Amino acid sequence: MHTAQLVERVRGGDRRALARAITLVENGSAELREIMSGLAPHTGRARVVGFTGSPGVGKSTTTNAVVRAIRERGLSVAVLAIDPSSPFTGGALLGDRVRMQEHATDPGVYIRSMANRGHLGGLSWATPHALRVLDAAGFDVILVETVGVGQAEVEIAGEADTTVVLCAPGMGDSVQAAKAGVLEVADVFAVNKADRDGARVTRRELRQMVAMVDRADEEWKPPIVMTVAAKDEGVAELWARVEEHYAHLEANGELAERRRARARGEIQAIALERLRSRLGGVGADGGIEVLARDVAEGRHDPYTAADLLLKELGSGAQ
Amino acid sequence: MHTAQLVERVRGGDRRALARAITLVENGSAELREIMSGLAPHTGRARVVGFTGSPGVGKSTTTNAVVRAIRERGLSVAVLAIDPSSPFTGGALLGDRVRMQEHATDPGVYIRSMANRGHLGGLSWATPHALRVLDAAGFDVILVETVGVGQAEVEIAGEADTTVVLCAPGMGDSVQAAKAGVLEVADVFAVNKADRDGARVTRRELRQMVAMVDRADEEWKPPIVMTVAAKDEGVAELWARVEEHYAHLEANGELAERRRARARGEIQAIALERLRSRLGGVGADGGIEVLARDVAEGRHDPYTAADLLLKELGSGAQ
Repeated sequence: MHTAQLVERVRGGDRRALARAITLVENGSAELREIMSGLAPHTGRARVVGFTGSPGVGKSTTTNAVVRAIRERGLSVAVLAIDPSSPFTGGALLGDRVRMQEHATDPGVYIRSMANRGHLGGLSWATPHALRVLDAAGFDVILVETVGVGQAEVEIAGEADTTVVLCAPGMGDSVQAAKAGVLEVADVFAVNKADRDGARVTRRELRQMVAMVDRADEEWKPPIVMTVAAKDEGVAELWARVEEHYAHLEANGELAERRRARARGEIQAIALERLRSRLGGVGADGGIEVLARDVAEGRHDPYTAADLLLKELGSGAQ
Repeated sequence: MHTAQLVERVRGGDRRALARAITLVENGSAELREIMSGLAPHTGRARVVGFTGSPGVGKSTTTNAVVRAIRERGLSVAVLAIDPSSPFTGGALLGDRVRMQEHATDPGVYIRSMANRGHLGGLSWATPHALRVLDAAGFDVILVETVGVGQAEVEIAGEADTTVVLCAPGMGDSVQAAKAGVLEVADVFAVNKADRDGARVTRRELRQMVAMVDRADEEWKPPIVMTVAAKDEGVAELWARVEEHYAHLEANGELAERRRARARGEIQAIALERLRSRLGGVGADGGIEVLARDVAEGRHDPYTAADLLLKELGSGAQ
């Protein structure tokens, strides 16, 4: 399939083209530039909602229930499940297959996992690229699901319009959240498995901690929704809160700001990667080899060497 | 403590100064430049040995036993335990305290964990910086211990003179190793818990896979040592193999090459970070804000915007 053809088919929502395009994103294909260029004019419509939480809070179950709630409102939805664990587990794919079953025959639902969340050798702009693909394909809502392991939760907030943080009773999630900086970025909290002991304690703890935190958007007080996703309880309310937050973002101009911030990060990451490969090019001329030897043998510290390398690159030191 | 004073005390092996300096590395302190500059002339002596393997292979036990073997040869040793897991678990610190007990009264042993292994917001040059601190403090050997989670194993190999990969029977480690690219970077394998069923199978599998792999250093065939670290069995042999590898590196010039490569990575990371902050500076002038809006609203793709940003940076496009 040629790139132009792939772009057309993605825009038409063709499943095979979508799968292909996201695989190209995962693999950091050289064709991405052309694909992103072709898709760019057709983006900016989809709402991006991040779902995150520790393993065991019922993230997949909640996402599935939310997908149902979204479908009931007549909106189409894509789920991008980002697996930050080892790219070698294959767990993401298995999860996909199991979850696909419920929605397999619904043309308004697309579920895809992406093993490469951008760290440890992958593209740091993989997520925004994948979002662009799904956005251009015309989905009304894109749910980005990540396993919350500290920093990952905070990072996904940078990609989403609305970030939902899932907790569960008795998992110490509220304390974890406070430590990981999640309180600052969560727009909506869900205490899932709310029929279990301790759910109200978890809610109270969350509420107390949220009150103590300074958020960038002072006008929005993150609601805490009690859900039992496995029984579909509270899920409609959860989605209603997400829609309220979206309306709030639109009303105060924050939506455009968040999307600009997302684009800014993506541009900088690509620019930086280009500079990185240019630094490698400087090395080919032998300059960095001499500097590396000087540092290895203690004649320079690495900061001085970096200054000299940048001077050589022609972009001046400092 | 002033920087010059800190540098002096680190060189003298003062424990409090070491702890302070590595904390500054963890935190990405602004004083690092001056500290590294002060320490640089006093480095290049220590042998750096990486220990890695999946959770449960007995890494801490093996490291402890190897520390004993090193001490028996009259060499001083520092252990840098790098915890790639969430910085919020506190697990590293607990592990430290437990392990310190055996060697607490031995002035020739220093054990320190570092939560920040450089990804997810930390300094990517944290490990080489910490190695420089311990090297300048005069330790003969530095053991760098990492939990092997795929890519992390491969990355630590870039920091060490010799990389030891620990496996255990029945954990599927040999298959994992093959997938994660560890076979290419391991200099010595240890099959720990070798008194358990399946140890010889694991050794055979490893041997077969090692034979199939192209290594950068063709002259060294990675030995596979059987150990029961908890009973001190095979540990002296393991250390002997590490010393053999070190002698091999010295003899064929590979040692200097590995250290230059390490310095090269450190220099490039610092240079790149400086470029990154300059890209942020470009943003302060408003240039990147306009580009980010164009990308967010679909008028540009991010690659074109990155080209324009680099042009603005004055370093030319491409």
